[in-house]
Amino acid sequence: MNIHYLDNSATTQVCEEAANAALRMMRENYGNPSSLHKMGIAAEAAVEQARETIVDALGVQAKNVFFTSGGTEANNTAIFGAAEALKRRGDRVIVSAIEHSSVYESAKRLAQLGFDVQFAPVNENGVVDIDALRGLLNEKTILVSVMAVNNETGSVQPTERIAKLVHALSPEALFHCDAVQAFCKMPLKPKKWGVDLMTVSAHKIHAPKGCGALYIREGARVMPLLYGGEQQHKVRPGTESAPLIAAFGTAVSLADISGNMSRIRALNAYAKERLAAIEGVAFNSPDDALPYIINISAEGIRSETMLHHLESRGVFVSSSSACAKGKRSYVLEAMGLPDDRIDSSLRISFSKYNTEEDIDALVEGLKSGLNTLQRK
Amino acid sequence: MNIHYLDNSATTQVCEEAANAALRMMRENYGNPSSLHKMGIAAEAAVEQARETIVDALGVQAKNVFFTSGGTEANNTAIFGAAEALKRRGDRVIVSAIEHSSVYESAKRLAQLGFDVQFAPVNENGVVDIDALRGLLNEKTILVSVMAVNNETGSVQPTERIAKLVHALSPEALFHCDAVQAFCKMPLKPKKWGVDLMTVSAHKIHAPKGCGALYIREGARVMPLLYGGEQQHKVRPGTESAPLIAAFGTAVSLADISGNMSRIRALNAYAKERLAAIEGVAFNSPDDALPYIINISAEGIRSETMLHHLESRGVFVSSSSACAKGKRSYVLEAMGLPDDRIDSSLRISFSKYNTEEDIDALVEGLKSGLNTLQRK
Repeated sequence: MNIHYLDNSATTQVCEEAANAALRMMRENYGNPSSLHKMGIAAEAAVEQARETIVDALGVQAKNVFFTSGGTEANNTAIFGAAEALKRRGDRVIVSAIEHSSVYESAKRLAQLGFDVQFAPVNENGVVDIDALRGLLNEKTILVSVMAVNNETGSVQPTERIAKLVHALSPEALFHCDAVQAFCKMPLKPKKWGVDLMTVSAHKIHAPKGCGALYIREGARVMPLLYGGEQQHKVRPGTESAPLIAAFGTAVSLADISGNMSRIRALNAYAKERLAAIEGVAFNSPDDALPYIINISAEGIRSETMLHHLESRGVFVSSSSACAKGKRSYVLEAMGLPDDRIDSSLRISFSKYNTEEDIDALVEGLKSGLNTLQRK
Repeated sequence: MNIHYLDNSATTQVCEEAANAALRMMRENYGNPSSLHKMGIAAEAAVEQARETIVDALGVQAKNVFFTSGGTEANNTAIFGAAEALKRRGDRVIVSAIEHSSVYESAKRLAQLGFDVQFAPVNENGVVDIDALRGLLNEKTILVSVMAVNNETGSVQPTERIAKLVHALSPEALFHCDAVQAFCKMPLKPKKWGVDLMTVSAHKIHAPKGCGALYIREGARVMPLLYGGEQQHKVRPGTESAPLIAAFGTAVSLADISGNMSRIRALNAYAKERLAAIEGVAFNSPDDALPYIINISAEGIRSETMLHHLESRGVFVSSSSACAKGKRSYVLEAMGLPDDRIDSSLRISFSKYNTEEDIDALVEGLKSGLNTLQRK
């Protein structure tokens, strides 16, 4: 059976070039990047080359980007590190109601620790309600976190506008942007936009799981999450995962944002046209979502039931986010969708490897599922 | 030029089998272990198979072992997680004076946060002074951390004896053991010994950098360091690095502790005999150190000078630990070594790939260095 992998926002297949880069670091260039001899220096050079690639993609400087074990660690470092560094200046922390769990749960933990945590609502398109956010921003606000692209719907947030609003109304606040679903899929300009902290991840862009990075604007104060050796200026100690970092850099260097975007846009249009023709399919993603993600509901069929029906036909999609492991989507709830729509929602997410055949298989699977599966 | 890599306590070459396991997870079994479909389930199965291997090596249960991004994160989770969980029961934290920086610096951070942090001294052999430790243990003690094997000298700590002492005198305390340099090199029995928390790492045993694990005894309370998704029972959220975890499991499954130990013991004896015959070489490791590590001083030659002389001949060793990036060794200081010995110290560390030829190259390099290099 052919595999139609349409779950690329959960994770992606590692591309050949990135896998080979990792392999080279494991088998040949295996020194410890902190070792003073040339085997260490060669490994360090590979790490720094990867850092340059990522830095170039973000338009920032190498000294301001720190490798982490992934998006979760980068988001946690941003949230806890900023809150800890700035707690004497204020206690309000604002995150959007549709953040990834690694921001959302970190914010809830901050609330337990005594911070005044506020969740900024979103409108029916899954976009942060700017007026509501404006109402939450005050002089006691030390941190605001709003993602660039939502992981369940693809809704694109007005990052630059939010950053400017935050800095205008809350001069002490750092603005963090979780850009895991946006990185290498749309242009990101943290410096120009006024983003102080930005999270990116490797495994959503054809590099391996276990690697991410955090951009920290020059001068922004963030306490480390980890303590230890002298690596990465002690902002993030621990032996760098040179194999994963080299693979990450390779994947970024191969990312063709605009070329891929035209392909994915065409695929998205094809998918929407075919999906719209199926009775019982409703769209949950807004029209102007990033075209890599389409969130739909298949009327009356529970997400997991349809997911397993589709997988039996080689078609792989998600019910909400992978990290939630089947729990109810608070993202769709925050958009005000009715329970029926939420409980039958599916996320379809593309990569450059997808073709119209994958869409055709999905459409046939959805049709047969809607015809044969038991309604809940 | 042949490579004589004698810096295996800094990091190791990834073995072919582990590299292939990682490659398979990157290219074929690339699903997200949290995805509900079978591509997720297949990735999860590989992660759980690796966990079983590690669990078997430690004689513990799968539900008590959590994958991390490496030794540094596992150590930080143990130190901060235990201190946070138990801070209402007491405020004393004791770590040995020769801990790895990821324990040492974490303890120093706890002191900044108001904990009563004490550093247990070691004797001239680099072994924790039991009487001194006994004097530090009290009812307010909530955490004690002593490594299994020191990373600079190979000194083996009396882990079981310390664990029992801790539990006898400090009933509220958790005992953490950083076993990064011991894992797969000597038998570890955390349950039998009374160790509550144990850290292990992948890249010291021919698996890739970026992966480690923390054993947490059933019932031991440790707060998470990271917040996010549902992975690993929320003790350590974040998408598991399935490639690195599979490689880690493979390397552990191949580890032949007793077979390797006899080989390394013979190599160590050969090295000591040849090194002892060089005028100007002094041994800093105790006689009963783990034979994987020999710490020496080359009289009058600064560590870095000799290190670079050796590397010019293809021989790779360390000055103190890699993570310190050339900073002065606080481990050798804690053992009471004179400054001259510390500033000329070198760490030689073996793996199963080393041969007598590597020792011969080292010995020739040391001899020529002692004859030709400028005294400091």
